[in-house]
Amino acid sequence: MSRPLRIGVAGLGTVGVGLLKLLDAQADLLERRCGRRLLVSAVSARRRERARGIDISALAWCANPAELAARADVDVVAELIGGEAGPARATVEAALARTKPVVTANKALLARHGAALARAAEAAGVALAYEAAVAGGIPIVKALREGLAGNRFERVYGILNGTCNYILTEMQQTGRPFAEVLAEAQRAGYAEADPAFDVDGIDAAHKLAILASLAYGAETNYDAIHVEGIRKISAVDIAYARELGFCIKLLAIVRRTADGIESRVHPAMVPLDTPIASVGGVFNAVVAEGDFVGRAVFEGRGAGEGPTASAVAADLCDIARGLRLPTFGVPADRLEAAPVSPMLKHFGPYYVRLNVLDRPGVIADISAILRDLRISIGSLLQRGRSPDEAVPVVMVTHETEEKAMLAALDRIGRLTAVREPPMMIRIERL
Amino acid sequence: MSRPLRIGVAGLGTVGVGLLKLLDAQADLLERRCGRRLLVSAVSARRRERARGIDISALAWCANPAELAARADVDVVAELIGGEAGPARATVEAALARTKPVVTANKALLARHGAALARAAEAAGVALAYEAAVAGGIPIVKALREGLAGNRFERVYGILNGTCNYILTEMQQTGRPFAEVLAEAQRAGYAEADPAFDVDGIDAAHKLAILASLAYGAETNYDAIHVEGIRKISAVDIAYARELGFCIKLLAIVRRTADGIESRVHPAMVPLDTPIASVGGVFNAVVAEGDFVGRAVFEGRGAGEGPTASAVAADLCDIARGLRLPTFGVPADRLEAAPVSPMLKHFGPYYVRLNVLDRPGVIADISAILRDLRISIGSLLQRGRSPDEAVPVVMVTHETEEKAMLAALDRIGRLTAVREPPMMIRIERL
Repeated sequence: MSRPLRIGVAGLGTVGVGLLKLLDAQADLLERRCGRRLLVSAVSARRRERARGIDISALAWCANPAELAARADVDVVAELIGGEAGPARATVEAALARTKPVVTANKALLARHGAALARAAEAAGVALAYEAAVAGGIPIVKALREGLAGNRFERVYGILNGTCNYILTEMQQTGRPFAEVLAEAQRAGYAEADPAFDVDGIDAAHKLAILASLAYGAETNYDAIHVEGIRKISAVDIAYARELGFCIKLLAIVRRTADGIESRVHPAMVPLDTPIASVGGVFNAVVAEGDFVGRAVFEGRGAGEGPTASAVAADLCDIARGLRLPTFGVPADRLEAAPVSPMLKHFGPYYVRLNVLDRPGVIADISAILRDLRISIGSLLQRGRSPDEAVPVVMVTHETEEKAMLAALDRIGRLTAVREPPMMIRIERL
Repeated sequence: MSRPLRIGVAGLGTVGVGLLKLLDAQADLLERRCGRRLLVSAVSARRRERARGIDISALAWCANPAELAARADVDVVAELIGGEAGPARATVEAALARTKPVVTANKALLARHGAALARAAEAAGVALAYEAAVAGGIPIVKALREGLAGNRFERVYGILNGTCNYILTEMQQTGRPFAEVLAEAQRAGYAEADPAFDVDGIDAAHKLAILASLAYGAETNYDAIHVEGIRKISAVDIAYARELGFCIKLLAIVRRTADGIESRVHPAMVPLDTPIASVGGVFNAVVAEGDFVGRAVFEGRGAGEGPTASAVAADLCDIARGLRLPTFGVPADRLEAAPVSPMLKHFGPYYVRLNVLDRPGVIADISAILRDLRISIGSLLQRGRSPDEAVPVVMVTHETEEKAMLAALDRIGRLTAVREPPMMIRIERL
């Protein structure tokens, strides 16, 4: 029997408490699987005394989480504090500086400083593992880095934010407006008091930055991601989507184009018969399209105490078993600063909803603008007639460059008969 | 740059050829990911000259695949011959005897001799890797052994045979009978000329033996699996299933019960709203239910040149990167000879379809038999009336022990008003 792996846990929020519960409940199972025991030797949190449902009295306590790394009885540091700077970053850097492996659930930190931390981990000769940072309990980091390592990825996309998916699923099932469902999600604990991080797409973009790096061996580049949230999605658009054979999901998508790497987070219309369309509520899903494997789909719980603890434990098992992998799938000195494929060159179909005065010539004016920008309309819906009142007009375009689409929407929005700013949602071919 | 990993490939059928194509197409990508080149140095197949769409003239040739292991220019042997004995087994044993790691796609070999081979690999201190043996391109072996290693598995189940899933999907979509769809699948190349291996559930059971071992750290025990195929499934049952809110899938299921490990392959009715219900055609899917992660779903192509090559390449990447994991997730000397939970103690709901003479008292006789065996009926359908002619009666039971169910079916089948042997399909709660 090898000696135990002694873990210093920084952060005792949902994830940290979940990890302690898991390591306690599965102690014998993990010993059998890893050939050694996994023990928590020391912990750190903002306050030592607090009702957490676990007993930490037998564990060493560090007031400052960065001090965990300095302890002789800590072999590996689990950073479960969160945030792209402050004590989280200091804790990770302190551990790597002392050549101790790190497990983290911190997507913001990796999205912002992933490449530099990968280099630090490699210089130290230790693992920097982060399965819990993307898609909760779904082992997607391992799948991209190892299980699908024989593939060039055409595209990787997914539903990476459970809060948004819960809200959109509820809106779809009940027809209620965004604000009402958000308020309910906040009461139920599925959304934060300040929901911006989730509903504006930032959390999904952090995760996408990591997936992009893994899929393409590229330096993490959060700023390259085009990010839109779901606040603008209305029940009307959800109803039209269904009528057209789509549902609306907040998708995070990365793919390689002729210009570089295109990465984007935005609401997208996806066909109802694709696997990801039926991923509802707080579930996450990731689809990897590889040139040999074809389409591989991974679905599971994207957040919460149990699933996140499962992912952290998987990383700890890897370390206990002596496995060390390049952080983003290639050695850190071979990570590329990949060129960014600009969003204005995005090419795809679009859904557009207009609110126009019902009078002769309006459709002709809109059609002329689209023609001048060489945008071809696939279908157009105009329901009901209310002469000289506002009515909705819905169009689906054929594949179009984003730059032309934005120019068209700008011109259309300035027509006097168009009463509201045009609503545009990208359609994703899956 | 480390020295290349030199691969001896035994077997140049679909999988072997796919692997050679992949290693050629992705040579630079794999070098970047693994930090060294992956090269095929020698091959073996039944015949050297044969149109395969690849050029093997520059590779060393072994007439006997077991000789690959003896070559100084072979670091790892990829056994892609297939079959539980003969040259496949000899090749794997020869490689392990020379302490060379093995990658195999051979589910029959592992299902039958997995525990012994795992011990041999461990004694040799080398990897025995087999991602391609289960669910084609889906990295489910890695998921169970590593990505979900923090979980106790409540149940693992899946659609593991693409041929059966294709046939059942076609039957469901077109209403045509089994024999007709099978013949079409044979013409299209989705089913073998002798379809027994697929349609009788043997292939799925081989894969389940491996999943069971991985999930529970148990010795592979193919003979413990209860196996039924799909030949008996009729269009009538598929239609009733849909009416009751189910579809019929060939499921492979393993779970732990109070008595031990219950493992079974049989047609099952699954609720239409569960993720696995929408896995159609030649796709495979595996669902792992873990106590911390909850439900994790993995879906992808279960067979074919590209997906299988993807899985073999993933194993080769692990070896090139210096990773070695216990074959079935725990060290081989800790694999348990787990007790078998007998199928007669299986507990669940059942679908039963009878063909009975439409005359007074028949339902009363059937009901009395069920009452005597303490089987409770959840619903009963009897359509149409044709006095003194045969009509279908369909029942769904509440949860019942298999032993009681079989006794009831035996007694019911002996009633003179029952004109055909009763049809029974287990319902799986998902």
